[in-house]
Amino acid sequence: MHIHLINPNSTASMTAQALESALSVKHTDTRVSASNPADTPVSIEGGADEAMSVPAMLAKIREGEVQGVDAYIIACFDDPGLHAAREVAKGPVIGICQAAVQVAMTISRRFSVITTLPRSVPIIEDLVSDYGAVRHCRRVRAIDLPVLALEEDPKRAEWLLIKEIEAAKAEDGAEAIVLGCAGMSSLCDRLKEATGVPVIDGVSAAVKMAEALVGAGFTTSKVNTYDYPRIKTAMSHRVCA
Amino acid sequence: MHIHLINPNSTASMTAQALESALSVKHTDTRVSASNPADTPVSIEGGADEAMSVPAMLAKIREGEVQGVDAYIIACFDDPGLHAAREVAKGPVIGICQAAVQVAMTISRRFSVITTLPRSVPIIEDLVSDYGAVRHCRRVRAIDLPVLALEEDPKRAEWLLIKEIEAAKAEDGAEAIVLGCAGMSSLCDRLKEATGVPVIDGVSAAVKMAEALVGAGFTTSKVNTYDYPRIKTAMSHRVCA
Amino acid sequence: MHIHLINPNSTASMTAQALESALSVKHTDTRVSASNPADTPVSIEGGADEAMSVPAMLAKIREGEVQGVDAYIIACFDDPGLHAAREVAKGPVIGICQAAVQVAMTISRRFSVITTLPRSVPIIEDLVSDYGAVRHCRRVRAIDLPVLALEEDPKRAEWLLIKEIEAAKAEDGAEAIVLGCAGMSSLCDRLKEATGVPVIDGVSAAVKMAEALVGAGFTTSKVNTYDYPRIKTAMSHRVCA
Amino acid sequence: MHIHLINPNSTASMTAQALESALSVKHTDTRVSASNPADTPVSIEGGADEAMSVPAMLAKIREGEVQGVDAYIIACFDDPGLHAAREVAKGPVIGICQAAVQVAMTISRRFSVITTLPRSVPIIEDLVSDYGAVRHCRRVRAIDLPVLALEEDPKRAEWLLIKEIEAAKAEDGAEAIVLGCAGMSSLCDRLKEATGVPVIDGVSAAVKMAEALVGAGFTTSKVNTYDYPRIKTAMSHRVCA
Amino acid sequence: MHIHLINPNSTASMTAQALESALSVKHTDTRVSASNPADTPVSIEGGADEAMSVPAMLAKIREGEVQGVDAYIIACFDDPGLHAAREVAKGPVIGICQAAVQVAMTISRRFSVITTLPRSVPIIEDLVSDYGAVRHCRRVRAIDLPVLALEEDPKRAEWLLIKEIEAAKAEDGAEAIVLGCAGMSSLCDRLKEATGVPVIDGVSAAVKMAEALVGAGFTTSKVNTYDYPRIKTAMSHRVCA
Amino acid sequence: MHIHLINPNSTASMTAQALESALSVKHTDTRVSASNPADTPVSIEGGADEAMSVPAMLAKIREGEVQGVDAYIIACFDDPGLHAAREVAKGPVIGICQAAVQVAMTISRRFSVITTLPRSVPIIEDLVSDYGAVRHCRRVRAIDLPVLALEEDPKRAEWLLIKEIEAAKAEDGAEAIVLGCAGMSSLCDRLKEATGVPVIDGVSAAVKMAEALVGAGFTTSKVNTYDYPRIKTAMSHRVCA
Repeated sequence: MHIHLINPNSTASMTAQALESALSVKHTDTRVSASNPADTPVSIEGGADEAMSVPAMLAKIREGEVQGVDAYIIACFDDPGLHAAREVAKGPVIGICQAAVQVAMTISRRFSVITTLPRSVPIIEDLVSDYGAVRHCRRVRAIDLPVLALEEDPKRAEWLLIKEIEAAKAEDGAEAIVLGCAGMSSLCDRLKEATGVPVIDGVSAAVKMAEALVGAGFTTSKVNTYDYPRIKTAMSHRVCA
Repeated sequence: MHIHLINPNSTASMTAQALESALSVKHTDTRVSASNPADTPVSIEGGADEAMSVPAMLAKIREGEVQGVDAYIIACFDDPGLHAAREVAKGPVIGICQAAVQVAMTISRRFSVITTLPRSVPIIEDLVSDYGAVRHCRRVRAIDLPVLALEEDPKRAEWLLIKEIEAAKAEDGAEAIVLGCAGMSSLCDRLKEATGVPVIDGVSAAVKMAEALVGAGFTTSKVNTYDYPRIKTAMSHRVCA
Repeated sequence: MHIHLINPNSTASMTAQALESALSVKHTDTRVSASNPADTPVSIEGGADEAMSVPAMLAKIREGEVQGVDAYIIACFDDPGLHAAREVAKGPVIGICQAAVQVAMTISRRFSVITTLPRSVPIIEDLVSDYGAVRHCRRVRAIDLPVLALEEDPKRAEWLLIKEIEAAKAEDGAEAIVLGCAGMSSLCDRLKEATGVPVIDGVSAAVKMAEALVGAGFTTSKVNTYDYPRIKTAMSHRVCA
Repeated sequence: MHIHLINPNSTASMTAQALESALSVKHTDTRVSASNPADTPVSIEGGADEAMSVPAMLAKIREGEVQGVDAYIIACFDDPGLHAAREVAKGPVIGICQAAVQVAMTISRRFSVITTLPRSVPIIEDLVSDYGAVRHCRRVRAIDLPVLALEEDPKRAEWLLIKEIEAAKAEDGAEAIVLGCAGMSSLCDRLKEATGVPVIDGVSAAVKMAEALVGAGFTTSKVNTYDYPRIKTAMSHRVCA
Repeated sequence: MHIHLINPNSTASMTAQALESALSVKHTDTRVSASNPADTPVSIEGGADEAMSVPAMLAKIREGEVQGVDAYIIACFDDPGLHAAREVAKGPVIGICQAAVQVAMTISRRFSVITTLPRSVPIIEDLVSDYGAVRHCRRVRAIDLPVLALEEDPKRAEWLLIKEIEAAKAEDGAEAIVLGCAGMSSLCDRLKEATGVPVIDGVSAAVKMAEALVGAGFTTSKVNTYDYPRIKTAMSHRVCA
Repeated sequence: MHIHLINPNSTASMTAQALESALSVKHTDTRVSASNPADTPVSIEGGADEAMSVPAMLAKIREGEVQGVDAYIIACFDDPGLHAAREVAKGPVIGICQAAVQVAMTISRRFSVITTLPRSVPIIEDLVSDYGAVRHCRRVRAIDLPVLALEEDPKRAEWLLIKEIEAAKAEDGAEAIVLGCAGMSSLCDRLKEATGVPVIDGVSAAVKMAEALVGAGFTTSKVNTYDYPRIKTAMSHRVCA
């Protein structure tokens, strides 16, 4: 089974970190590869960054289809272009936010999400709502640290995350924590140990979900919404007015 | 990895069928065992049947805990006693309804559920709502056939299911179908072939979800709701009035 | 009119307390009896305790049906087995949580619930949602006291409840308080007096609702979901695998 | 106990019919009186009719407060002015729509409402949503007959209602029917008999709810929203522009 | 284009203030007039005040219809009688709460509302829910000042509002503020300047929405719910019982 | 005031049609310009088409910012990139779906949407839900015609739309119709006439909303979510694995 993980931003060190997390949980039989586009934003912090990264990510999926990839993981917690990707791919496409939320709903009854910047909070809240976890998700929190600062100062990131997890336990009654950024992946085990609460890394969750779906023979439904995009004849077009 | 599947009703042939479905999708490394209580209803058709089957099912989990079972599957689509079971088990407990719904939300954007008796429709609607799929699930349909009739006359069951799947495609815009009874498990492949729409069997979905969660090291959160039941000192008690 | 109150746990002193509350509000024409099973948990604190108490509670209802009971009250705030009980009974079955929520929605526009242990909070939140009071119920709070401690140290319980009611008024804007445990029943009047806010005891609410429904001639609908459980032929069954 | 039923429209024959229904279910100890304003619309069919009837209805409640009325019933299915009335009254104020919905949620798991004119359908849908029964209420249906035609041609009304109840059973899976107009009250028993499904008349439901609440000592919370209206000093005021 | 603004309460100075706000944003081509009934409460603080003001407001609309008014604005944040008014008017009827909420949903992703008295909080919460902004609206806050005190001590009102806006930014993550009372209209610009967050005055929002709808040729749909009220033959009616 | 309308697809004739609709409703004082990217799909039918069109659309907005555009309209009913666009623009950005839904919620109580292809139905349902109109929107319907076929055979499109509007009136109780594709814009008046129900074209609605917001001085909140995208230092990046 070949799972391809795409980091939609262009920071290769983040791709490497996500791949490492993926490799640490994958089954021995599974092949996981990873890539990132070369010309997308260096981190995804908000809707415009998301939008700028999706076409290049879809191109990666089109390449994967030629190579016979069985499933894809979008390794950014905003799940950018998730529905679009499912139109392009034959196999399942897993968003790390959706995967993490599904795990959280299975191993706990109430959880909180902790992300980087406050501007991502409403975006994640709306995703959580789309994935049906409005009541299960107590709160989406932010440590107010840019994505790349996670790598630059991992000690500070860890300290801020531990503080926020403790707040989520005390104030939200959170029974599990979802890490709201792919860049937090490598801190997951330490956070679990430090706080005693299950901490869910979306990358790991997504790898296992992808293995599960491919293993059971599921592919993306091509009935209606997720059908392949219609082939468009090029037309002459001109800017008007 | 040891996954134990519990059929909460007492019909061993249904347990055998569910086990067969489980074995057909499990990874070679995974051990799946199955059991059913001896003194529960022969099929679960409504809330009273559910209630009568849960204590014996919890006893099976307690046995499993002694034997070091890694995850449990409750092989009845009403997910009876799911929350209770999670209190008793250390590892993940997967309900086949929740697992199937999570798969359906991942491989399609709109799906319908098809169950046996009309009386189960509101029960499943409420579960689907609890699992966050109100908007994704177009409709819960029933073929109006008792559970045990699935085994007694599989040809008729298959014919009724195909008819209902076609209705779900045409009237609901269903992009995937969830089979709303563990007893439909063995028909899954034929239905998929006959209708051309992804058909999701909860037993298979649950086995792969269990493998995924155990594989990534997830266990049930023991923080708050799913903590082990408090130990109770027996007290004298008498019926009054 | 004969109303039978069932305390699903096996602590007879709690049954006696609930009966006392029931007797204090019932109409002179109404006969209220009460019972509890002998072999269920001594208190219901979570889903496993609930599950272990339901079959014995249903047996009590089956006995009641023979004796011509007109309506039943399940005197535990988690409303364990409520839907199952309605399948078994001809007359109305009232859950004290649902009754209390309906009263709260009628005499106030926003209310809070106060229960015993934090682990019951998500359970009650989900019930409140099922009963349609998501927006009306500001918050479910817990005083973090085991159920039996209510009886053992009623002074401390009262003090904790008063403190929590004051918090609910100040922080939640609660206009009424629902007591989230049958064991708080006897404290209701004192709490009302101490805090000046309507305090709703589910047992009293349920008794009056039962009188109302029986008085108007309502019985449980036997159309579809709440129809009597189907009679099952015993089948041979054996544990497999 | 003195319950006062107010028909907000000015058609005395409808008031008489509602009173008759009330008297037929009330407890022997209860005194039920009824009145209607003299200058409100002859029937309430839509929001403007509602609005025109509320001030006079509130005046009736103010009169009742002087006379020591214990609870009020607003005998129009749109529950016009329900929140306003609760500010004015000390005792509980029961809307027949809310009372019927609460009964329906207790004796069945899914119900439908049948009203007179299609224009009332969205109004009732929004009420049902406010009362928390979105999932429980399958559909609000209309027989497309003006309110007063119920009295003028009761045979035709009965025939149309039976037809609509049968449709609700077959198409909605309705397990109980709520009559969506006070003017249908007198047909309730015949409809129940003709269709074999529980039929809920809001007037009867409201009388019993009122008895229940008063009997248990509940009054309207005067904390915040339902507090008495603030006394206003008359100010000079002039139309401008 | 002629827009008529109706202040449903009888305080002419509030009408004048609302008119001033309207005139400050209206297009030069638009004519805005304003009026208030003479015999309604001096301020609207709760449901009873609302109810007492609606019939006179509807009378103003009936007058407007004769004069050829193109659109109406109900200048009270509770949007009293909004649905009723739409039945009576041919052109659009704009509630200042609905208009402000629509603006807030367009220029921000999360907002908070700040009103006068705590008793209005649940009323506004329910409106916000009816207008579909449950997730977008973080919180409805109150400065606990009666409506008329806004005019009597505008300095204090301004100070309280600034303090509450700062709390909404810090605690709610509010990205925009909706002023929850027509009487706050004149403070809008100063609050925006003092806090650096967009502050939305419902009166201004409503004027522009009315211009937009009339400008595009939209009128109120007369299909079903908002159709003109049915003409009622006066019937003899008498208070009974 | 300068409003710039962007058709995200690359079909200039559709841009011209949308511009024509815009010009027909705009105020004489308003300048409306229009453009479309040159290298995006010729029509937007699904999520992948959306994703491929957004970066070029954002580039158009960046150009507009330099030129001092006051507000933008995204003239595609899926509102592709709406949140992203709001981060990039200073002034308001109006999606034609959101604008149409807001108009529909103001002039009617229940409406239906009619779009082109069935695959867009779930996409629009989710948008309608995000905009808070779940209860107001009865149904999203499709005439099963590709977007470009609207232009190629307008007579057939008109006939199919009339048929579908009649179905929406009869089956959904729709009181207004929202046209679910910018390409239906030119048919709006004829449909209104043919069916007697208000028909809402999103382009016209959006132009008037843009005029309203700019006219009242509203700009997009730069507090949090819609703040300008953070400036990213280019980093070296390489595809890994």
